[in-house]
Amino acid sequence: MFTVRVPATSANLGPGFDTLGMALDLYLNIEIEISYGMNQVFYTTGGRAQPRNIPAEDLVVKAMHKVFEKVGREIPPLKVTIHNEIPIGCGLGSSAAAIAAGLSAANFMVGQRYSLNQIMNWAVQMEGHADNIVPAMVGGFTTAMVYEGKVYYQRLSLPEEIKVVAVVPDFVLSTAEARAVLPDKVDLKDTIANLQRACYLLASIYNGDTRNIHMAMDDVIYQPLRKHLIPGFELVFEMAADAGALGVALSGAGPTIVAFCTGDEGQVGQAMMEAFASHGVDSRVLYLNPSAEGVKILGKR
Amino acid sequence: MFTVRVPATSANLGPGFDTLGMALDLYLNIEIEISYGMNQVFYTTGGRAQPRNIPAEDLVVKAMHKVFEKVGREIPPLKVTIHNEIPIGCGLGSSAAAIAAGLSAANFMVGQRYSLNQIMNWAVQMEGHADNIVPAMVGGFTTAMVYEGKVYYQRLSLPEEIKVVAVVPDFVLSTAEARAVLPDKVDLKDTIANLQRACYLLASIYNGDTRNIHMAMDDVIYQPLRKHLIPGFELVFEMAADAGALGVALSGAGPTIVAFCTGDEGQVGQAMMEAFASHGVDSRVLYLNPSAEGVKILGKR
Repeated sequence: MFTVRVPATSANLGPGFDTLGMALDLYLNIEIEISYGMNQVFYTTGGRAQPRNIPAEDLVVKAMHKVFEKVGREIPPLKVTIHNEIPIGCGLGSSAAAIAAGLSAANFMVGQRYSLNQIMNWAVQMEGHADNIVPAMVGGFTTAMVYEGKVYYQRLSLPEEIKVVAVVPDFVLSTAEARAVLPDKVDLKDTIANLQRACYLLASIYNGDTRNIHMAMDDVIYQPLRKHLIPGFELVFEMAADAGALGVALSGAGPTIVAFCTGDEGQVGQAMMEAFASHGVDSRVLYLNPSAEGVKILGKR
Repeated sequence: MFTVRVPATSANLGPGFDTLGMALDLYLNIEIEISYGMNQVFYTTGGRAQPRNIPAEDLVVKAMHKVFEKVGREIPPLKVTIHNEIPIGCGLGSSAAAIAAGLSAANFMVGQRYSLNQIMNWAVQMEGHADNIVPAMVGGFTTAMVYEGKVYYQRLSLPEEIKVVAVVPDFVLSTAEARAVLPDKVDLKDTIANLQRACYLLASIYNGDTRNIHMAMDDVIYQPLRKHLIPGFELVFEMAADAGALGVALSGAGPTIVAFCTGDEGQVGQAMMEAFASHGVDSRVLYLNPSAEGVKILGKR
């Protein structure tokens, strides 16, 4: 038996659309046992958060099959037990985690035949976007680049004092729905604003200078178009800032909203929940830390 | 007498349009003497490069006047001697240097009454864009952000082994002409490509990992539109890469093309000049280093 652990991720982080992402200490754990005599895959689901409408299980198995197909072997009979802490379909990278977990588990079973890079490229093909896959696989704060169909990344560690408050409203927003509001064209001035802000945000983190990240995280390309999909959006941002958040962003395709803090996490989380509540939306808060680790195979027991 | 020294700068660096920039060890030096009894400003021009069609002198004096106006004082009679190494109107930040020099000289004369930040904001108002002003003032590799009319920046140092080969073709391209080809709207996919590449380039430099910067420097927004303004453009890029350049970009609004190298500078410069020559364009090469210093007041003599 072995376990694969993959972190939740928050992508975009405001201006870095399809680019920036970070890993969070909320995990998808998949325990895998060879199940002699049983010719099928079993699921047991546990953990803090219950899966909602996206079957992460299917993605895990689909990903495992992909690797075995490449090797030209049949997948052996297995017992797969999923302990998932990542809310599903909420913009916290549950799909990316499932894909990364399945590919990495299968790769472990075939003797680590494929490099991290190869696995990452398959994962991006399956997921469609690199911004969650990269931090799910390598941890930390990442910037992803897809060039001529291949994925490249750079990674850095976040300062330890940064905490992430993730407020998960009680409804699901599909990535497809969130992507449907995106325009084909963007004003050049908005392109420049996001370029300046994404680079400034990244450099601020490298320089450990978080003074102006509330400005740097102020996206002008897609958040304004996704606002109306999330009741209370603007008030949540405002109240988080008022309560002391360093910066606030829609997490991936949403509807989760994340705030960076260096203290005041409790007030920030409370304020964000109240803002949602005042728009009739129930929500819950996850108080998280950046995860320096990505995919990890936890030894045989 | 005192001297103000300001470096040349290369802005954009491929994907980082109006955002990224760096200082180069090619300088505008302005010697200023109080000229008792003379109620005017004198110019003497010297140095490696001759001014061409943009009167840097006027910008220097205009910038000096701005500070004295703010203080509410008359500018005293001066002798201003300009030693300029920066080719004028070639995309190497000659205007930014002139403005930064004038403002900084005048600020020195009024007892450093204004902060670097204040001077930088006035400079950006005069120049219109922050991407050259910021590195001209603070040196190094910079990322600029203008938010609600104010300029913010982050700065880092380039690895020492990076050299910059700047090939200056023998014609002038006005910034206005170069800006006229810019579109109002950009495809979302191109916006994403430049976001990914600009962030990857920046992170590569922070991480000292220059392996993939030729991809990261491949802009898809404005360089394709400026190509036809510069005969030989594509061949210069190709031949620089073939000769060993790490990455190649149009410098600011052009027509200078810069290549990053860690060795092979001679071959790269030669290859780029030959590429221009094969399109009937004379050019000259400047072999440069990043400048860690921005505006500097060299002590009274």
